[in-house]
Amino acid sequence: MDIQALLDLADEQVEVSRQVEKRKTTLRGRTQINLFFEASTRTQSSFEIAGKRLGADVMNMQVGSSSVKKGETLIDTAVTLNAMRPDIIVVRHHAAGAVHLLAQKVDCSVVNAGDGAHEHPTQALLDALTIRRNKGRIEGLTVAICGDILHSRVARSNMILLAAIGARVRLVAPSTLIPPGIARLGFETFTSMKDGLKDADIVMMLRLQRERMNGSFVPSVKEYFRFYGLDQEKLSYAKPDALVMHPGPMNRGVEISSDVADGAQSLIREQVEMGVAVRMAVLEALASHLPNR
Amino acid sequence: MDIQALLDLADEQVEVSRQVEKRKTTLRGRTQINLFFEASTRTQSSFEIAGKRLGADVMNMQVGSSSVKKGETLIDTAVTLNAMRPDIIVVRHHAAGAVHLLAQKVDCSVVNAGDGAHEHPTQALLDALTIRRNKGRIEGLTVAICGDILHSRVARSNMILLAAIGARVRLVAPSTLIPPGIARLGFETFTSMKDGLKDADIVMMLRLQRERMNGSFVPSVKEYFRFYGLDQEKLSYAKPDALVMHPGPMNRGVEISSDVADGAQSLIREQVEMGVAVRMAVLEALASHLPNR
Amino acid sequence: MDIQALLDLADEQVEVSRQVEKRKTTLRGRTQINLFFEASTRTQSSFEIAGKRLGADVMNMQVGSSSVKKGETLIDTAVTLNAMRPDIIVVRHHAAGAVHLLAQKVDCSVVNAGDGAHEHPTQALLDALTIRRNKGRIEGLTVAICGDILHSRVARSNMILLAAIGARVRLVAPSTLIPPGIARLGFETFTSMKDGLKDADIVMMLRLQRERMNGSFVPSVKEYFRFYGLDQEKLSYAKPDALVMHPGPMNRGVEISSDVADGAQSLIREQVEMGVAVRMAVLEALASHLPNR
Repeated sequence: MDIQALLDLADEQVEVSRQVEKRKTTLRGRTQINLFFEASTRTQSSFEIAGKRLGADVMNMQVGSSSVKKGETLIDTAVTLNAMRPDIIVVRHHAAGAVHLLAQKVDCSVVNAGDGAHEHPTQALLDALTIRRNKGRIEGLTVAICGDILHSRVARSNMILLAAIGARVRLVAPSTLIPPGIARLGFETFTSMKDGLKDADIVMMLRLQRERMNGSFVPSVKEYFRFYGLDQEKLSYAKPDALVMHPGPMNRGVEISSDVADGAQSLIREQVEMGVAVRMAVLEALASHLPNR
Repeated sequence: MDIQALLDLADEQVEVSRQVEKRKTTLRGRTQINLFFEASTRTQSSFEIAGKRLGADVMNMQVGSSSVKKGETLIDTAVTLNAMRPDIIVVRHHAAGAVHLLAQKVDCSVVNAGDGAHEHPTQALLDALTIRRNKGRIEGLTVAICGDILHSRVARSNMILLAAIGARVRLVAPSTLIPPGIARLGFETFTSMKDGLKDADIVMMLRLQRERMNGSFVPSVKEYFRFYGLDQEKLSYAKPDALVMHPGPMNRGVEISSDVADGAQSLIREQVEMGVAVRMAVLEALASHLPNR
Repeated sequence: MDIQALLDLADEQVEVSRQVEKRKTTLRGRTQINLFFEASTRTQSSFEIAGKRLGADVMNMQVGSSSVKKGETLIDTAVTLNAMRPDIIVVRHHAAGAVHLLAQKVDCSVVNAGDGAHEHPTQALLDALTIRRNKGRIEGLTVAICGDILHSRVARSNMILLAAIGARVRLVAPSTLIPPGIARLGFETFTSMKDGLKDADIVMMLRLQRERMNGSFVPSVKEYFRFYGLDQEKLSYAKPDALVMHPGPMNRGVEISSDVADGAQSLIREQVEMGVAVRMAVLEALASHLPNR
């Protein structure tokens, strides 16, 4: 299934989610396990609601309080769960590549709900859906991804997805938060918000992940906001009809001001709703390939 | 819906809950989120069972292990969940007023499952239902609420509700555990159990919340039980057919003796069952107002 | 219901679990509470999936974060939950005998999911089912249970069950990990793997529970593996068609080597699948005795 077809399916799910009498039973009798090695309000909830709105039996795994404490490895945990014959396992893990590794060891469908600083594909899909619904298209738009790109799986997945469907992606960040060598992949990079936001259609802010910065460089919140926090003044550098996005959870007053986050140009709440729709689309797309077991 | 009508609806739910073939589907396809910022065995379980017995998809939010740790505010959490289009959010929070604040920011139904030392309305409703089923009425009864009134949202909600439907409410506690100024609201206060329990129809004990007492006055358990713990002797001051209640969890040997808690005059177990019925009634009453989404 | 009939029912459940169109609704409208006072990945998940595949409403109790912290006793917790009229409570507790005590205080069905070092009956049933499906029978087989027998409820339940249905059960362990007096109950004991595994049909390894060993005797992992860890060499002492089992979670390189755990003679993954089937069988067997409430 190509990206646009998946977004079309997600568009339909918005109505399924909004209207109780349109609910589906595509996943009735199916077992969906949400296996989260990192806590997450919105992503886990979003997958749980998505699965339940399609009729799945959803099981959340409390991994912090589980066998992992008894010394069981990631792979043993996955193989054990797989033996219970779930249909879909949704995985978040703190290590890049862990989800891919796990997927090779099980025979059910696996969805990546975020692996370390690597990827977060359903976030990129929901961002694309949100943009497409508001701008009517993605091709040809200029999207400025701003802030802590170095630690952001959201940034990485968005860069790949948006570029694949024809957006012009720019990266705007202090030089210490830009992954080395990224320019060689064809992305324009900027260290000034003024330059980076010029003529942007979409301004996508990232959460400053201070908890992932060990020692070397932790910017002061005040300095960071002054140079890279999106306020009305910096937003004015973008196109007049530019729209603002943030994957959440937000640090208000750090990477974004409250008036912008809650302002008329903000799509932040809509992103959350689209998150449920996109996950329903992913689950439903997988369902058509599930074995009759 | 007035209080007596809600209690009538709860009375019906007792049978729905007891008999599997009477289960309803009022909330089928509806999403109920239990958003608990404080742990709770009985209240969260009660709401979860209530929702499921009406066919809802119930999602429990592990707030301790969530985005709140990443610095997200209460309001951002609520707005985020609201964007996933739940029908009902059940909220417990450690701060008085938090649930009211949250309800103003979302467009779904919100149920207060306890906010700080402020209110716990479904507890008061289940207490009223329990009394009405056992005494046939509430109007004209004398209800003595005893113990740690100062820190008790249960006491506050019961005072309001029981007074509204015609009970005579008395407060019995050491003077340090009576909220200042309460007498001006028309409630009789007593510092002696003997005086306070005289001619009472209902003796409602409260949990001594030592975890909420900082420094100034923490009574010794032994002294507290001697003067305010309900044992058979103190219970004999009340009417011979007086009934004993406690919202749980109990500190046996602190505010109540085991023989009274488990004795023939105790309604404590029935209160728990009525808790499920009252919450089903509240959820069902809300369902009739839910949008067709 | 006798053991073989329960295993027959479990055999049927394997297909119910594997094929989505065979799912049952035996427990529709029923409330199953998983009350776990000890964390467990596989047992809790297994019971949750089992209940849901039979249509039950399953509620997991987070006991670590519950009223138990507020000083409520085990019995008060159980009596409280019972008042909510569940049909089945599945209990795991760290104290031997706790589940039995709890069952006396409630009027719903109670399933023991492991109590201290005492019993873990559904584990023994799933082990028996796994053996029967692979060997065609249990009667007359020689089963060597090896390792930390002293701390193992799995060992105890297997000894009772397998002996009851005609297997010859041997215990193989260092003398410090064999419960005193066990030989008087008719079980052969061995301190040498070479002697203990001779002619065994089934080699059942146990997890070394160092977290339960306080002070006196904690073996070094390296020494333990050298003398009691199952590797290909030690496995060769058993019959050529011997099969290897482990209840999980495994300490690889402690009580079992990875090549044996993942090798052609290993039933370890199948045990997990049979766990779901056995629990479905237990739940369904109980359902036929549930009151019409």
